[in-house]
Amino acid sequence: MANIAKKVSWSGKNDETRGERTPLLNGSEEVRYNRQVPGLSCLASYPSYLDYDNSENQLFLEEERRMSHMGFRCLEISRWVICGLIGVFTGLIACFIDIVVEKLAGVKYSVVKKNIEMFTEVGGLSISLLLWVVLNSAFVMVGAIIVTCFEPIAAGSGIPQIKCYLNGVKVPRVVRLKTLVVKVCGVICSVAGGLAVGKEGPMIHSGAVVAAGVSQGRSTSLKKDFKIFEYFRRDTEKRDFVSAGAAAGVSAAFGAPVGGVLFSLEEGASFWNQMLTWRIFFASMISTFTLNLVLSVYHNKTTELSSPGLINFGTFDLEYSLYEIPLFICMGAIGGLLGALFNLLNYWLTIFRIRYVHRPCLQVMEAMMVAAVTASVSFAMIYLSNDCKPLKMDNSEEYPLQLFCADGEYNAMATTFFNTPERSVRSLFHNPRGTYNLLTLGFFTLTYFFLACWTYGLMVSAGVFIPSLLIGAAWGRLFGVLLPNKTFIKPIWADPGKYALMGAAAQLGGIVRMTLSLTVILVEATGNVTYGFPIMLVLMTAKIVGDYFIEGLYDIHIKLQSVPFLHWEAPATSHWLTAREVMSSPVTCFNQLEKVGTIMDFLSNTATNHNGFPVIVQASGEQLCGLILRSQLIVLLKHKVFVERAHSRLHQRKLQLKDFRDAYPRFPPIQSIHVSQDERECMMDLSEFMNPTPYTVPQETSLPRVFKLFRALGLRHLVVVDDVNKVVGLVTRKDLARYHMGKHGLEELHLAQM
Amino acid sequence: MANIAKKVSWSGKNDETRGERTPLLNGSEEVRYNRQVPGLSCLASYPSYLDYDNSENQLFLEEERRMSHMGFRCLEISRWVICGLIGVFTGLIACFIDIVVEKLAGVKYSVVKKNIEMFTEVGGLSISLLLWVVLNSAFVMVGAIIVTCFEPIAAGSGIPQIKCYLNGVKVPRVVRLKTLVVKVCGVICSVAGGLAVGKEGPMIHSGAVVAAGVSQGRSTSLKKDFKIFEYFRRDTEKRDFVSAGAAAGVSAAFGAPVGGVLFSLEEGASFWNQMLTWRIFFASMISTFTLNLVLSVYHNKTTELSSPGLINFGTFDLEYSLYEIPLFICMGAIGGLLGALFNLLNYWLTIFRIRYVHRPCLQVMEAMMVAAVTASVSFAMIYLSNDCKPLKMDNSEEYPLQLFCADGEYNAMATTFFNTPERSVRSLFHNPRGTYNLLTLGFFTLTYFFLACWTYGLMVSAGVFIPSLLIGAAWGRLFGVLLPNKTFIKPIWADPGKYALMGAAAQLGGIVRMTLSLTVILVEATGNVTYGFPIMLVLMTAKIVGDYFIEGLYDIHIKLQSVPFLHWEAPATSHWLTAREVMSSPVTCFNQLEKVGTIMDFLSNTATNHNGFPVIVQASGEQLCGLILRSQLIVLLKHKVFVERAHSRLHQRKLQLKDFRDAYPRFPPIQSIHVSQDERECMMDLSEFMNPTPYTVPQETSLPRVFKLFRALGLRHLVVVDDVNKVVGLVTRKDLARYHMGKHGLEELHLAQM
Repeated sequence: MANIAKKVSWSGKNDETRGERTPLLNGSEEVRYNRQVPGLSCLASYPSYLDYDNSENQLFLEEERRMSHMGFRCLEISRWVICGLIGVFTGLIACFIDIVVEKLAGVKYSVVKKNIEMFTEVGGLSISLLLWVVLNSAFVMVGAIIVTCFEPIAAGSGIPQIKCYLNGVKVPRVVRLKTLVVKVCGVICSVAGGLAVGKEGPMIHSGAVVAAGVSQGRSTSLKKDFKIFEYFRRDTEKRDFVSAGAAAGVSAAFGAPVGGVLFSLEEGASFWNQMLTWRIFFASMISTFTLNLVLSVYHNKTTELSSPGLINFGTFDLEYSLYEIPLFICMGAIGGLLGALFNLLNYWLTIFRIRYVHRPCLQVMEAMMVAAVTASVSFAMIYLSNDCKPLKMDNSEEYPLQLFCADGEYNAMATTFFNTPERSVRSLFHNPRGTYNLLTLGFFTLTYFFLACWTYGLMVSAGVFIPSLLIGAAWGRLFGVLLPNKTFIKPIWADPGKYALMGAAAQLGGIVRMTLSLTVILVEATGNVTYGFPIMLVLMTAKIVGDYFIEGLYDIHIKLQSVPFLHWEAPATSHWLTAREVMSSPVTCFNQLEKVGTIMDFLSNTATNHNGFPVIVQASGEQLCGLILRSQLIVLLKHKVFVERAHSRLHQRKLQLKDFRDAYPRFPPIQSIHVSQDERECMMDLSEFMNPTPYTVPQETSLPRVFKLFRALGLRHLVVVDDVNKVVGLVTRKDLARYHMGKHGLEELHLAQM
Repeated sequence: MANIAKKVSWSGKNDETRGERTPLLNGSEEVRYNRQVPGLSCLASYPSYLDYDNSENQLFLEEERRMSHMGFRCLEISRWVICGLIGVFTGLIACFIDIVVEKLAGVKYSVVKKNIEMFTEVGGLSISLLLWVVLNSAFVMVGAIIVTCFEPIAAGSGIPQIKCYLNGVKVPRVVRLKTLVVKVCGVICSVAGGLAVGKEGPMIHSGAVVAAGVSQGRSTSLKKDFKIFEYFRRDTEKRDFVSAGAAAGVSAAFGAPVGGVLFSLEEGASFWNQMLTWRIFFASMISTFTLNLVLSVYHNKTTELSSPGLINFGTFDLEYSLYEIPLFICMGAIGGLLGALFNLLNYWLTIFRIRYVHRPCLQVMEAMMVAAVTASVSFAMIYLSNDCKPLKMDNSEEYPLQLFCADGEYNAMATTFFNTPERSVRSLFHNPRGTYNLLTLGFFTLTYFFLACWTYGLMVSAGVFIPSLLIGAAWGRLFGVLLPNKTFIKPIWADPGKYALMGAAAQLGGIVRMTLSLTVILVEATGNVTYGFPIMLVLMTAKIVGDYFIEGLYDIHIKLQSVPFLHWEAPATSHWLTAREVMSSPVTCFNQLEKVGTIMDFLSNTATNHNGFPVIVQASGEQLCGLILRSQLIVLLKHKVFVERAHSRLHQRKLQLKDFRDAYPRFPPIQSIHVSQDERECMMDLSEFMNPTPYTVPQETSLPRVFKLFRALGLRHLVVVDDVNKVVGLVTRKDLARYHMGKHGLEELHLAQM
């Protein structure tokens, strides 16, 4: 019996068809980033990927076979309980953020308002400006410092990270409790600091962290293991729960439980399962209900339950007519164009930041600068505007600024700038015709567009949903006001609020390019099903127009980090590629009974950072007989599951599935494991721990077919075999993500540089 | 080279673990029904199954490789166009049904009303009764005759059939134009005939037929081929479009486009694809928009667009409070119990019908009898009721019956019985407190429950949604009225309409047991997102309670026909079963170069009605090298693609993919193909036509793993190989559907009896 691992190579590789491929990509899955983009620490190097395919080894099968019908029932019930808990906690976190932000912003605006009122008559408004700038910068400084110093991954909205996680890329530290704490505090600071940001996007990330924490029954940050839900400590189950958490987050943010479910499914669940979807829906519903209940109790409106989400668009009672549909499509196109411009500017800005703004102090200073500029610009806009409106009795404005207006009037520009963005959006949707004049709306759109674009990508926790809605609502309202009011048809477009809504949809769609889920989220947020059709048309147009120029904002940020993100389908024209061309080869294989030293050497070899190893039968012609993961080998080595030469094999059977679960998901690095020289000479019997039935494909399988198998089953490794079941290569995520559809047909990305 | 096909068998089969299995189940996929259930002709013998996995043979790959980037774009655009057309046609059909039913029912009710008014004072109401009975029976007779004589598969709601189709079971004639015509006429007759049925369920079937017709660009019923969309003539594409059609049907029926998408996904799409879902959503939206537009124009309300669906629940403005949630859960439990009772009664009735009512004339007579009884019972209820209410000025009642009431009053019982069911549902939801007295509601619930139960399963086209809603609305309203009105909490339950809605949801959920999609459908139909949470709770409780007793109505009907329906997951406790135990073995294999006579003999052998044949390489040790389908072999035989002994193989290459598409989906039977004795000695080269990369699993693969692969990829055949890639068996749908979770753990069904 040979003691060294086999290198199985297939010699007939057709190098013409894969000219661009470097010969160094042999079987490693580690992704290194381009030297040009070292700064995006929020999505720093991914050590590995998630495995949605259970390793059905002997231990696993024995456990499953031991489990009774009742046992499975109990598991199912605990899944439901976990989803309920995810919903409750996510809802509570949303409440906490909402209440604290309202309180802090209220204090801030009251102080500044009092100051402005004091100085309006006597002169010296520059002191008010200074006060505003200082207050904003202070909030943002706190927010930026905690993010940069404690947990850089909590920066931004977290949606790209969650997209990656649900796609199967393991983003380090993304679902830790510490990240959640930093995220929540960061969001509060940045929203209270008056940045052009929203608190809705981060809810999705928060929900995902809650889900990961609750479902695993332990926390690394707290170093506490509650010894519950141990069955769920594997990628398959964890990812299902994280989907539920993300959905609960969307649901709490927008009061959109169905939208949340669709978001999770669009982004994550490759394998649609009825029970899973139903559980995700349950988590979403509980989340919005908890938020609703707590906020209602907080506002002393127990019997009403009228706050299903953090942002509430208010009630739209408007009907639309057939004649307006071309107008809506037109608005969708504008949204697509503006969204593409936004994304392009933000892309350049991100490149700039990656090159020059990567030290924490610089990042904090940039954030503070943006806060100061935002306050100054807002102040200037309010100061220079002379759009005075009579103050209404119903006190719909929270902080009406009189400034230079006559008594009994207030400054209309201030209702959009001197307010939390959520309130501004609602004002733009619902204030009656004539509340804002054209210049106010135009200037507001322009300034907010650039401010929001500058803000996204700062090292603060914040989302882009609300700023997008705000920009869109402003130009949408402008569009509505500009329409001729007296035409041959009944002036049903008397109310510009409808156009504000469509503009908001168009702008948001143009920036993030989400489709079905966004339609449903917006419909649920308006609470009016009739708007479904126009919103769909607007989003579709915005996506088509926007996609012509540049990708969506999240995809840009994911791509900038060369993450091997798998799309839904293989590129259309990739049928001429086969598994033989895309696979990594040669691949390291182990024997069923392998020498410890050999395994140690291979795992320690940093040049070939493999994660999955086919296991072959030495005796009968090197046929494939299983697949073993690096993580499993490490646990085996750590527990020294060795067969000594003299002893029988029976000695070995002592490791339980529990040992693997305890080590999950942070398996120790190979360097931390010490093996003596004597032990190196021992053997390891892998047959009990390897997955004996890995999925395989023949070499001639076309890329779309491989892709479909990979995506439908959420695989991490797919073994390529020849016609007598010998291993010839291994297809990994990176091999598939490399091919994408460019402007000129199929292109090959360079994801890894060894 | 051997000329006979190989029988590869695996001798070590573990017979202990599969004691119940008959030795006759060797590789055949044909499903024969139990002798006890011969009558359910609507779902008669299925010749075969759908294949969601493309056969990527050389012809296919060559075509795909020839196609340019632009070509794929065009295909994608035509997919969108088809979905748009599906939406438009489905919407138009819904309009047609709606308008014709309203007209016919209007005429009927006017005639009967006039007659009743004429005879109320002078006596002789028995003549009115007779008139009503005759009118109803006449309508129903026409409906029953066209269904029984022309297309029995058009009977019922069509939802079980569409569920089967989307699950992958090819139900014969289910998506033909003729079926659609019969369905539409049948629905009109049965609704106009006053049966306790709805026109909503059949819309799902109609949408599916439209989708199949439009996407294939031809009609068998019309014998017309438009020579368009030929690329889509295969199972994969067709099933995607049928999903879109079913969604469009739901959307038109309930004005619920998102609900439609979720219905399709819950029932069909095993592999979630973003673009597909977005297209399905597009079809749904277009469908509800078309309906809305046409009905608005028809009712001269062009600018309003206020009829998104066939049934419209009207606007609910009510809030619910926390204290009501236990009440809702209670209602859910009642709904579950009543639903289970309904299903149980209908199950017994169906068994009775299968045994004794299977001749067309009996079926027509039964339908007429039900119509007569329905009219009589309704008349009796109206006649005996003395629930008089003052006639309102706003004329909300279409046909107010005065009967024995004082002038200016009308009979309240008549608003529920003397009306189309859709109007009755709306009345129950929205009429103010005090419209109905307790006895009216109680009697109505009781009679309608039994009438609806008797009606479902008749040989008429009709749905069960509306009757369920009606029963539920009646007892829900009763529940609401019975609640103490003055309690320690604010009497927010003053309006019983809310309880009617919850009762309707509970009853419908208790009968059909749909979950996520039904919640969304109901939320969209009410147009009020706030009700999402209570409706979800109600449906969940109804499902849990109902499932304890008996399955859902559609599942009962599917099961009664022993259809090999694949659920979402393998039974939980099936890990101890492996591919070796579930597979069919021995399996017929062909050589790559096989004798025509051998192939003819195997295909003609009616005892072993195989549909997929592994192809093996004779030379190098009988390894698997491909999979060929019966349908492909038949096309090859028909076109006589033979290699004569003397000639070279090049002679053969003349068959195009087009030849396969033209034959799709109704491949000729083997008996229609004549092969001369000389030709029998020729050879056929299968290598170009077989799928060279079929999915395979090793023998030790556990059942859940096999199931997951099968379901995720929508397979029809899965080859089981040994460790040197030799064929040992074939797993088909029937092998997997056999195992299910019973009360006492894993049970094995007897689906096939050879």
